[in-house]
Order: sequence, then C-alpha cells, then structure tokens
Amino acid sequence: MIHPIPPGTRDVLPDEMRELRRLNRNLVDVFEGAGYGEVATPAIEYDEVLSRGDRPSSASPYRFFDENGDLLALRSDMTVPIARLVATRFADAPLPLRLCYLASAYRAVLPQRGEMREFVQAGIELIGAPGAEGTAEVIGVLEAALDAAGLDRAVIGLGHADLYRSLLAEFGVEGEARDAVLARLATHDLVGLETALAEAGIGDAAIETCVALSQLRGGAEVLERARELGGDAVDRTTTRLQKTYETLVARGTAERVQIDFGLLRDLGYYSGTIFEVYDPAVGHVLGGGGRYDGFLANFGLDLPAAGFSLYLERVHVAQMEEESRRRERAALDV
Amino acid sequence: MIHPIPPGTRDVLPDEMRELRRLNRNLVDVFEGAGYGEVATPAIEYDEVLSRGDRPSSASPYRFFDENGDLLALRSDMTVPIARLVATRFADAPLPLRLCYLASAYRAVLPQRGEMREFVQAGIELIGAPGAEGTAEVIGVLEAALDAAGLDRAVIGLGHADLYRSLLAEFGVEGEARDAVLARLATHDLVGLETALAEAGIGDAAIETCVALSQLRGGAEVLERARELGGDAVDRTTTRLQKTYETLVARGTAERVQIDFGLLRDLGYYSGTIFEVYDPAVGHVLGGGGRYDGFLANFGLDLPAAGFSLYLERVHVAQMEEESRRRERAALDV
Repeated sequence: MIHPIPPGTRDVLPDEMRELRRLNRNLVDVFEGAGYGEVATPAIEYDEVLSRGDRPSSASPYRFFDENGDLLALRSDMTVPIARLVATRFADAPLPLRLCYLASAYRAVLPQRGEMREFVQAGIELIGAPGAEGTAEVIGVLEAALDAAGLDRAVIGLGHADLYRSLLAEFGVEGEARDAVLARLATHDLVGLETALAEAGIGDAAIETCVALSQLRGGAEVLERARELGGDAVDRTTTRLQKTYETLVARGTAERVQIDFGLLRDLGYYSGTIFEVYDPAVGHVLGGGGRYDGFLANFGLDLPAAGFSLYLERVHVAQMEEESRRRERAALDV
Repeated sequence: MIHPIPPGTRDVLPDEMRELRRLNRNLVDVFEGAGYGEVATPAIEYDEVLSRGDRPSSASPYRFFDENGDLLALRSDMTVPIARLVATRFADAPLPLRLCYLASAYRAVLPQRGEMREFVQAGIELIGAPGAEGTAEVIGVLEAALDAAGLDRAVIGLGHADLYRSLLAEFGVEGEARDAVLARLATHDLVGLETALAEAGIGDAAIETCVALSQLRGGAEVLERARELGGDAVDRTTTRLQKTYETLVARGTAERVQIDFGLLRDLGYYSGTIFEVYDPAVGHVLGGGGRYDGFLANFGLDLPAAGFSLYLERVHVAQMEEESRRRERAALDV
C-alpha cells in the first residue's frame, strides 16, 4: 500500500529535525539579539484580508470555504500577514518596530520542477525606518543570520526594484510588453529577455542597454559602468543604490554584498532597494528581501518598511553542503 | 480599516512568543530525553490518504483542490499523518519506535464557543509496544512533560475506550441509539445522557448503572465499586484498566493518575486505555491520548500503538495561571 504526499511537501525525520531545530534557534537568537521580537500569525486567514496586500502574482493558490461560508486562504508569505498584524495591533507603537518570524507558507508548484509547496521562512520586518539606513540595518541582520548558519561564502546581490520599470518607461514600453520583459528579467532568462525586448519594438541600442545592464554585477565600480550605459532612469536608480551601498560600507557590512543590476524579485510589493541571497554550494536562491515603502498603505498605515526572509530548508541544505566542504578541506590539510 | 482574522485563530505577540518558545523547548527536551525522535509532516496532504485513517468525526473540515486537480486537506491531528509516515518510512525499523512532534492542526469551530480552529499540538507516539507496559511508558512521558511545564496540580484521568460500547452491547443498545449515548458521554452531558439512555429503551436499572459508572472516579477503590455496579462487560474492562493502573503504580508514576469511568474521548481510533489531562487552573482539557492498537492497519501495518498530545496554547495558559498562583501564595507566606 502506497501513501503518497503532495509534490512539494515532505516529511522530516529525527536526524534532520534536530539540525533544523538548531538552525531555527540560531536564527531566532540572531533576530532577537538585534532587537526583533518574534511573532506568529494564523496560517489561514480571510482571503479578502490577505488580498488587500497581494498582487495577483503572490495571491494564495489555496483557498476554501469554512463552515460559516467564509472564504479562507493559506498564506503564501509572512510579509502580508505581518502588515495586517502591525496595522491591527501595533498602529500606535513607538517606531521603528522590529518583528521577526519563523513560519510555514504555501505556494502553487509546477510539476517536475522540484519547487516547494510548503516551506518554512525565517525573516524580519523593520517598520518605520526609512531609506538607506533602514535597508542597511536589515542587510546587517541578514549577514549575521548567514554567519550564524555557517554560510561563509553566501553572497547578497543588491539591486533596485524600480530600475527596469523606469528604464522601460523611458523607452516607451508599457502594459503587456513591459510585463513580458520584467518576467524574463525576474527569471534571469537572457534569451527570453532579448526576444521580449525585440517584440516590444524598441531600437537595437535600447535592447543592448537593457541586456548589458542585466549582466552587470560587482563592487562599487559597476555603479559607474551603469551610468555610462543608461540614461536618466538608470542614473536616478544608480544614485539611490549607491547611497545604500555606501551606507553598508560605512557600517562595515558590505563584504558579502555584490551590486547586481540584473536583480528583479518577482513579488510585486517591493519599491526600492531589493536583494537576494545565493550560496555557491546550492543552485537555488536562499532568500531575499527589500524595501516595501508603499505597501503598508494597503492596510491603512503610511510607514516605510523593509525586511527579508530566508527559505529555511534551502539554508539548511547549503549549511550541510558547506560543512561537508569544510570537512573535506580539513581532511586534505591533514 | 479593520482587518479581522478568522474565529479560532490568533496572533501571538513577542512576550507570549518567548514563553511559548521556552515551553516548546522544554517539552521537546522531555520527549527527546525519553528517546522520542522529533518528526515533521506536511500540514496539507492528499485528502484520500488522510481519510484512510479517519473516522467521520475527525475528518478534515478544510479541503481544496490544488493546481493539478488533486483534493488536498489540512490535517486535523498528528496521529493520522504519523501513522502514514511510519508505514512509509519506518515499516522495517526496529521496534518499539518512538516519535514525537510539535505541530499545527486544524479543526472546524462552532461560533461563539471559544474553540480553536488552528492550534499547536505537542505529543508522542509509541509504536510496537503493546499492553499495559506500553501505555504506562506513554503516561510516564506525559507526567514528565507536565512536570516540565510546571503543572504540579494537573490530573490524568484514566479510562477505557471499550467500556460503554461493550456495556451498551450487553444492554442491546446499538446503532444510532448507541451513538447518541456515546456522544453525551464524550461531552460529559449528564442530563443529555439520561435522556439518551431513556430513549434507547433500556430499563431503569441499566440506566442507573450507566449513569453511576459515568460518575465514578478516584483511586484503586473505584475499581471494586465498578465491579459491584456492572455485569460482565464492566468486569472485563475493569480488569484491563486495573492492569494498566497497577503497572503505573509499580513504575511509580500513578501519583497524578485518577481512574475515571466517565471518560470517553471522541476520536474514533482509540481501542483500549484512554486518558485525558486536566488542570484545576483552567476549564478546558489540556490534552489526552490512549492506545490505538487496530489503527495502523488502516495503513497496512499490524502494530500496537499508543500516544498522547497536549494542546500547547492551553498548557501555556495553565502554566501562566499556576505560576501566578504560586507567586500569590509566596507573597502570602511572606
């Protein structure tokens, strides 16, 4: 008799569970040590409330009617529920407000892709701290979390959510044509990007600018290179990115950070600096975050905000890979 | 703007979350210290697989189709998923198998009753250890967990799942009439019980026996009293209950245990000794468990099993009440 579980879900056995518990504890200790208080929210909420924060791209795929005839939904991340929580329970709290979480979330999966339908996210939200200083605090906590997980080689790619939207507006690309280009950028699909740009009907020079920008990553030197490539839109975004980067350098937390003009997160609510975490030991993005300054207005609060979340299972896999790599190297040294 | 959450769900803020984390850790430490390895399973499973273990009374109220057209369900407890897990991943493991968990589960709620729609359960399952010895081990771990939570006054009521089923069979009460009586017993509804018994058309003496039995609780002395009240069915069940109780006494873990002939848990899969935990500081049952020897056969395994689960939120409320009571008493002593 076979008793399958749905694709994208899994069972965790005791050996792995002990490691996950230790990782959980280390991450929450880092968050709490930085002043972030842990909160929990229901995994099921009113679909209508969750939808106040969602763009279609991040809407819950799992919805159902309850015994009272109300439409409920499983959350697909923690940023929306925490925005709801802040508006409900912390509307008059002193700012900035620092919250963290360790929670399951749910997303639809494509068959045969190895995607996660149920996954645990560990993250923080910093509410009421604007601009580069706020972003730099969040990235500093992220770096401490990666240290606590033993991911010495993890890299944080730093980009800006508005770059391509404003660049494409400058080129006169809008509507479906723009969305097609952004979708290719979000998935780092270079071939698809060139096709989508060509179909948008902009000139070869503009296409070249977009493609070249999307390949641009490195230290402070790429900021100048971006300005050479682009027009006003690129210049404005680069100036803002530069400010965040310089703040990180001043705080001594820029070591892991790589400026990445090819970065575009697919969640609709980001509005400024965005970032993603990679580790050379694994193929997947370990997590990411950014500023979402306009987002809390969906819940009636006009407050700047930034945060990140890490996929716990992926961080654990990277942790195991890095540990086994260190053991192999130590054995070679002996 | 109001952003409600569904009745029976709740947000947990940082102060409470720190206490819950500490309680979590203490409970898992007790379980692991007793040799129980923690496991995790998906909160969403195939409805068809979960239904293999369920009786209608414990079926998931929350079901939905996924993007592949498969019917999924939110789990309503952890015993069914762990039975599935054991059959899938531990079918050839050495016995007994000791597993524990700390996990959210979901049940339908009645309006205005303060019931929990989403709740966290902490518990253990002991697979492959039959009879009174197995049951006594499980109750011993439960007692250690209550100690770790600081619930000095918590009581474990000890009963037997077969008592009323076999007693009513002896009286010739079956089908809907029997289910009506069992439902009143499970909810400790004495008035409803007398009505249901009268409607079942048994004589006054039989009604009196049932009602008197359901009120019978205490130490070893109530075993004799039960035998005086009942016939063969009561005698058989009492003998089995006595054996478990004597094993607990021999292991030195009977102090918190009160024999309770009025106990009847509403989950259909229990088959022998059952128990429930009460604390005088709170009105709700804190948790419970029992033997479910025939249950794993639903997943193709012929193994005896027993376990318990505690409602984490209720244990936490009781813990806070007991602590404040101890503080008040200490203040009075000074």
